[in-house]
Amino acid sequence: MQHTLDRIQRGLKRRKLDALLVTQPENRRYLSGFTASDHSIAETSGILLILAQGTPYLLTDSRYRLQAEAEARGFRVTLYPRGFFVLLRRLLTSEKIKRLAFESHYFLHSTAQSLDKLAREKKVEMVPLTGLVEELRLQKSAEELARIEAAVRMNEAVFQEIHRGLRPGQTEKEVAHRLENAMRAHGAEGPSFDTIVAAGPNGALPHAVPTDRAIRNGEPIIIDMGLRLAGYCSDMTRTVVLGTPDARTVAMIRLVRQAQLAGFAALRAGVSGMAVDRVARSVIEQAGYGDHFGHSLGHGVGLNVHEGPALSYRNRKQLLPGMVVTVEPGIYLPGWGGVRLENMAVVEEKGCRILNHDTTFLDLQET
Amino acid sequence: MQHTLDRIQRGLKRRKLDALLVTQPENRRYLSGFTASDHSIAETSGILLILAQGTPYLLTDSRYRLQAEAEARGFRVTLYPRGFFVLLRRLLTSEKIKRLAFESHYFLHSTAQSLDKLAREKKVEMVPLTGLVEELRLQKSAEELARIEAAVRMNEAVFQEIHRGLRPGQTEKEVAHRLENAMRAHGAEGPSFDTIVAAGPNGALPHAVPTDRAIRNGEPIIIDMGLRLAGYCSDMTRTVVLGTPDARTVAMIRLVRQAQLAGFAALRAGVSGMAVDRVARSVIEQAGYGDHFGHSLGHGVGLNVHEGPALSYRNRKQLLPGMVVTVEPGIYLPGWGGVRLENMAVVEEKGCRILNHDTTFLDLQET
Repeated sequence: MQHTLDRIQRGLKRRKLDALLVTQPENRRYLSGFTASDHSIAETSGILLILAQGTPYLLTDSRYRLQAEAEARGFRVTLYPRGFFVLLRRLLTSEKIKRLAFESHYFLHSTAQSLDKLAREKKVEMVPLTGLVEELRLQKSAEELARIEAAVRMNEAVFQEIHRGLRPGQTEKEVAHRLENAMRAHGAEGPSFDTIVAAGPNGALPHAVPTDRAIRNGEPIIIDMGLRLAGYCSDMTRTVVLGTPDARTVAMIRLVRQAQLAGFAALRAGVSGMAVDRVARSVIEQAGYGDHFGHSLGHGVGLNVHEGPALSYRNRKQLLPGMVVTVEPGIYLPGWGGVRLENMAVVEEKGCRILNHDTTFLDLQET
Repeated sequence: MQHTLDRIQRGLKRRKLDALLVTQPENRRYLSGFTASDHSIAETSGILLILAQGTPYLLTDSRYRLQAEAEARGFRVTLYPRGFFVLLRRLLTSEKIKRLAFESHYFLHSTAQSLDKLAREKKVEMVPLTGLVEELRLQKSAEELARIEAAVRMNEAVFQEIHRGLRPGQTEKEVAHRLENAMRAHGAEGPSFDTIVAAGPNGALPHAVPTDRAIRNGEPIIIDMGLRLAGYCSDMTRTVVLGTPDARTVAMIRLVRQAQLAGFAALRAGVSGMAVDRVARSVIEQAGYGDHFGHSLGHGVGLNVHEGPALSYRNRKQLLPGMVVTVEPGIYLPGWGGVRLENMAVVEEKGCRILNHDTTFLDLQET
């Protein structure tokens, strides 16, 4: 990651910053290779101190020492037996830090107050900063793409295995548990978000939570799932039916699939996230369901399951090669249910490369 | 929870605050009954606005509407289709809020900056506040104690089931996965923290992460696990041996158990957390292992697996009836391994009530 560190350090110098505290766990992993996860934002497994020049630090406690030394190549692993602020006070002096940035979007207000007190005492200027590392994470390296692709492959294998065993009478919760157990059995670190299984009318809520309702023949069942493998996430949605789908369900799935294919056809470097959203959305609008597609078309995926770039009306920026996004149009009809289809793709110079191979309930013939 | 709300409202009036934003997820659940969990601190499922007088609000988005209305009795469920700050701006005016407190310990610095901007514009004073709701959560009601006890019972059943199937050659990771799968099979919401299985030398780290190392006959194996049931957590540690433990292991387990029993004997309302820690620690110190017990004796358990009160040298406050704590002394010897034993108890007027019944590897005879 020397190249990435160089870019961060140039970013710091440009802003006349002496150092940056990296608290966001995926940013920490991205820059250092340290894979530990945090129990919560208040119980961190470590914080990076990136200097504008010189070898960066990984500050952690004794529990993580061996793991940190093995994983964080090129970092000085330094322990804080008497707490983070005691160590930071020492480093502010020894490293002559006068302007210190911190990740405002992953820093508790109460911690910032403690930091501020220390900074005033040491005459250090604190600078809230957001998105510097996330910006670098947008375009994935070949190695990152390989990991994301491996996560997508595993996701599809897990989905297909559980889909084969789907039976009427299983509850939404039960199906979600089966999916999450299968992820672990296949070797995933775990789900990348809480699995959604929403059958019949429950599917009308885009982010439904699995209930004790049993799934039935003939109704659309939305399965939205993701897993994490070697740090990287997958995210995939299928809408399936047990038994024979009726004509309305088939028509809905075909319409959403057309919107998805239109989105992929528009996806390439140089167009904006907004433009891709527009193209796919207009397919659904023209069929008269525009009011029933209430979320954006897609989002970036990487170390976080939700990251930049957004495929939404708010993102006017041009997409760049190596970005990885979901394309996930949906239609939600209160009382009836919903259909959502989600695949992932890599943005390329002249188009995109779709990462999914699974075609379960994607390309239905008219009935 | 009317009684609890009354106490919060009195606390607000005493501080001349017009309202409090509750963002900490367990505080939100405690006050409102709303059981949704947050994807992350940046993606909340809802925020409470508790007024110093009048009916409190649960602010959420459309995905959670039905669940919020069903669960949050006595709250006005109000949606923010255009974002939290748009709704808050309106409520600051309609509810005549001039001094607004927020939970500094569960509030992102970047969100506080946005709030601050709104507050300046509306001439509202923002007041960082910490621990007001946590303070009320320290003493558990009879209903809460029943839930915690149910979580402990389930934890013991899960532990015993997996312990019966322990065999040399299983890896630490595999045992941890078995435990977490069994939690879900028994009906738990999930683990309350990442399960620790640390065999032989790995046990010398108090917070070891399970590895691919296979467990062996004769070595001490630390299993530290917890689950969440109906919102409430359990936390339990056993140190077990496959085959026959050697004399040293038996002696270590007996010593740690003596320290634990001394801790329980000292545990009652009116003594400080510090005093209980001292009593148990001195048993280990007198045996010459004081330097190898590097963490505090215990912590509170409730909606959070780690909450107040601490049984540690830093807690000078008197314990109160209805508090629930762990007592978990340990000895960690680099190169050899570790022993930790953890049970939970309710503090009572004249002593304590130990919640655990399981005695696996607790009361060993001398060999």
